[in-house]
Amino acid sequence: MREIVLEVGKRAKRAAMKLSTASTSEKNKALKLIAENLLSQKDVILSANQVDLEKADQKGITGALRDRLLLTEGRLKEMANGLLEVVELKDPVGEVVAGWKISNGLEIKKVRVPLGVVAMIYEARPNVTVDAAGLCLKSGNAVILRGSSIAWNSNFALTRVIREALSQTELPVDSVQYLEDPSHEAAQDLMKLVGYIDVLIPRGGESLIRSTIENAKVPVIETGVGNCHVYVDASADLEMAKRIVINAKCQRPGVCNAAETLLVHQKIANLFLPLIVEALKERGVEMFGCPETRKIVSGVQPATEEDWKREYLDLKIAIKVVGSLDEAIAHINTYGTKHSEAIVTNDYLNARRFQEEVDAAAVYVNASTRFTDGGQFGLGAEIGISTQKLHARGPMSLAELTSTKFLISGNGQIRE
Amino acid sequence: MREIVLEVGKRAKRAAMKLSTASTSEKNKALKLIAENLLSQKDVILSANQVDLEKADQKGITGALRDRLLLTEGRLKEMANGLLEVVELKDPVGEVVAGWKISNGLEIKKVRVPLGVVAMIYEARPNVTVDAAGLCLKSGNAVILRGSSIAWNSNFALTRVIREALSQTELPVDSVQYLEDPSHEAAQDLMKLVGYIDVLIPRGGESLIRSTIENAKVPVIETGVGNCHVYVDASADLEMAKRIVINAKCQRPGVCNAAETLLVHQKIANLFLPLIVEALKERGVEMFGCPETRKIVSGVQPATEEDWKREYLDLKIAIKVVGSLDEAIAHINTYGTKHSEAIVTNDYLNARRFQEEVDAAAVYVNASTRFTDGGQFGLGAEIGISTQKLHARGPMSLAELTSTKFLISGNGQIRE
Repeated sequence: MREIVLEVGKRAKRAAMKLSTASTSEKNKALKLIAENLLSQKDVILSANQVDLEKADQKGITGALRDRLLLTEGRLKEMANGLLEVVELKDPVGEVVAGWKISNGLEIKKVRVPLGVVAMIYEARPNVTVDAAGLCLKSGNAVILRGSSIAWNSNFALTRVIREALSQTELPVDSVQYLEDPSHEAAQDLMKLVGYIDVLIPRGGESLIRSTIENAKVPVIETGVGNCHVYVDASADLEMAKRIVINAKCQRPGVCNAAETLLVHQKIANLFLPLIVEALKERGVEMFGCPETRKIVSGVQPATEEDWKREYLDLKIAIKVVGSLDEAIAHINTYGTKHSEAIVTNDYLNARRFQEEVDAAAVYVNASTRFTDGGQFGLGAEIGISTQKLHARGPMSLAELTSTKFLISGNGQIRE
Repeated sequence: MREIVLEVGKRAKRAAMKLSTASTSEKNKALKLIAENLLSQKDVILSANQVDLEKADQKGITGALRDRLLLTEGRLKEMANGLLEVVELKDPVGEVVAGWKISNGLEIKKVRVPLGVVAMIYEARPNVTVDAAGLCLKSGNAVILRGSSIAWNSNFALTRVIREALSQTELPVDSVQYLEDPSHEAAQDLMKLVGYIDVLIPRGGESLIRSTIENAKVPVIETGVGNCHVYVDASADLEMAKRIVINAKCQRPGVCNAAETLLVHQKIANLFLPLIVEALKERGVEMFGCPETRKIVSGVQPATEEDWKREYLDLKIAIKVVGSLDEAIAHINTYGTKHSEAIVTNDYLNARRFQEEVDAAAVYVNASTRFTDGGQFGLGAEIGISTQKLHARGPMSLAELTSTKFLISGNGQIRE
């Protein structure tokens, strides 16, 4: 264990202790100050970002990855607005989740408390630094941040702005820390900081998530990987199905709740496939189909086993004709990543079975998978989308950053 | 990864899929059948237990450990009754935890679903085999059991009885499996069965818990280790304090919610220590005190740093005089295991601060720590007491063996 990692852990734990009893108004004050400082110190932040961008250019990084790294005045404004939205969200800490009295007169209350110390390991986008800090502060958690080396200077500048704002409040400055050691080993040590970290949330591609699960000894919440399906049932309204498939695939192909595979019931394959394939072609989507699909439509490349597993995050889609609802459910439960799954149908019992039997965080009937998002659900900003079953499933907002505690009050009760 | 462990995992996953949609009445039928069979097949079970007991005797195992291993007709009846109590508990699966409609007309429901596959690694007491199977079945989870080698034959016989009962129902027999490979390596493999186990719950002593956290790659819930404190504040009713301390220490010293350290405010130390030390002596409790304590009372051995950390699980207690509420809270947050902590006080603000600032699953004012128990809280039988903050904290009953899932229903909604 590197000294610097242990030190960061100790500071976070001390900060968390203080932060856990901070008032909502003090936390909101900090969020507003951070929002202001992001804008007033935009030059410092953007020039740090410029250093990262130049390094990225030297490495030949282009396209979506470079774009994710880029900060602009507009993006800083979005981050600041995001913080102000968190100010408006209800503070989850102190909520009495349940309460009752037992026969001997003891009063039991179950109340929400912060988790304590949250650690985040994440990839390119520097806005995660600000979003995570905001949600953790509001929910009374100290946070240890660790972004990717490609965004090092940007993340560091953002953290400095956040900490400067904290120093003007009653909250501990160490409520938000950035792990300054850029080495792979430091990240590995962070994953093993048992006793200091209450939850570690990795955000990024599949390899980051896998490596975290493989190496972490602190509790982890698995997030984000989404191999999502749209299944068009025999009774589907085909126009509705087309609209939903296009939206789920094309509205924003690079995100985790975009559809990656289309399943079509064989009874309507002859009617639906020509319709959808034409529409997907128009939008420049590359298609990979099963032999059945390729018999019906042209311009579809042969799909391999890999295509059923892949999260393309791109204008690509796999297409498979299935013989039944059972086959569709079995395919999804085999290849899906338990994120977001949709059926388009007008058959009541099939809709019911699909929602019951598909094992995923969000299961849709007659709607696009693209709604799996804290904001869309009306839950507020999210720190990630959990694809595991423990603690939180689906969009994780403020409540998911809390634990509970039993408070028991009596007047001398003992156990007989 | 040993083939046998992977095979058990695959079977559990298949069983879980089927079990997740099983009806409450079918699950209750299975529980009742198991309860009946435990009694009708008592001879087989008790003779298997006899084999374990003889081996234990050869190894010179005596006292509490041998007693925990022992099965009797009475204990089998208790297990059977425990199952019938679980029959009476409300099935958590399908409960709509929350539901709302968003502006575009999408209906969102958050419903309880089983976790999937629960694995338990546990020590001596064979009743865990039956208790865990019962709670997992009722909550729709498949369970993989792995007891200690000392109770091998007993656990195996109990599992056979459970599986025979399952074979007479519609539920999959593999809903309850016992990992038949007794090797240490097989247990280690079980901890690493990522993709097959949704949660692993270790139950036993500190070394088992530590080793599980150290080695597991599947999600773990930390349970049970309880270094619990009673703090007697300056304003405490001393008779009430005495009653609570005696109960917390002596009513059942071998359990996790028994008190291990007594903290006494210096203002009342001269009055309270003679009173409590005499009462503890009468009950045969060995005492280890700080220098301050030993100045005031005799018959108390010197406490070392180790005494503040130890979970004695025995008629032993550490005693420390503290100068303030702050010192008491700091001591508890330093040495406690976040299980159950109590203050005895008549000072309103101190009671409030103690409950807010002590970081533990259950924080008591003027009551014994011995109430931290699913049954006592009125929550029903428990599968363990979580001392971590993720997913569940405190007694874990049926609801804590579930996850949730978002069901979203629409009529063609797409994201703009």
